[in-house]
Amino acid sequence: MGELIHLVVVKFKEEVVVEDIIKGLEKLVSEVDLVKSFVWGTDIESMEMLRQGFTHALMMTFGSKDDFNAFQAHPNHLEFSATFSTAIEKIVLLDFPAVVVKPPTA
Amino acid sequence: MGELIHLVVVKFKEEVVVEDIIKGLEKLVSEVDLVKSFVWGTDIESMEMLRQGFTHALMMTFGSKDDFNAFQAHPNHLEFSATFSTAIEKIVLLDFPAVVVKPPTA
Repeated sequence: MGELIHLVVVKFKEEVVVEDIIKGLEKLVSEVDLVKSFVWGTDIESMEMLRQGFTHALMMTFGSKDDFNAFQAHPNHLEFSATFSTAIEKIVLLDFPAVVVKPPTA
Repeated sequence: MGELIHLVVVKFKEEVVVEDIIKGLEKLVSEVDLVKSFVWGTDIESMEMLRQGFTHALMMTFGSKDDFNAFQAHPNHLEFSATFSTAIEKIVLLDFPAVVVKPPTA
């Protein structure tokens, strides 16, 4: 089994300053080496019907399930999660081993 | 603006043979050069409450919004979409420019 992807699709509460959340995430992934990559984005293109009110996607990859488990238990992650969870209006979260069909070209 | 990510989080209908859907996707991304990368997975790790019944994540990246638009209009994509849409019980779809905070290490 290879990389594990931690995928979060979220709608933040209206009063939330998303920039602050992102700053917190940037800090978190820079401090915790277990996080192999982190990419996020704000939906701009999809049809509203298919977006279902969600606005942001956050994707972290980990080298293994063990690394991911260690991240989950990391004090910096626990601290960030406490803040993050108060900012969420709705969320879908999936954790899955990545099946790479077409690898990104360098 | 850099890469565009096409993210699909889905729960397939019970009678659907997911392997057939994946084979269709593998064929699609191998035939259409516009698709820069394709990674998918089946949730195995998240808490059921946070998974919200969704079972699969599919992620395609495109070099630009223009490439993505061309893919959307591509006959192979249109053909596949017709099959795919009948297989879905529920879906969340987000299309967004990728903000790369921590790039994957080679």
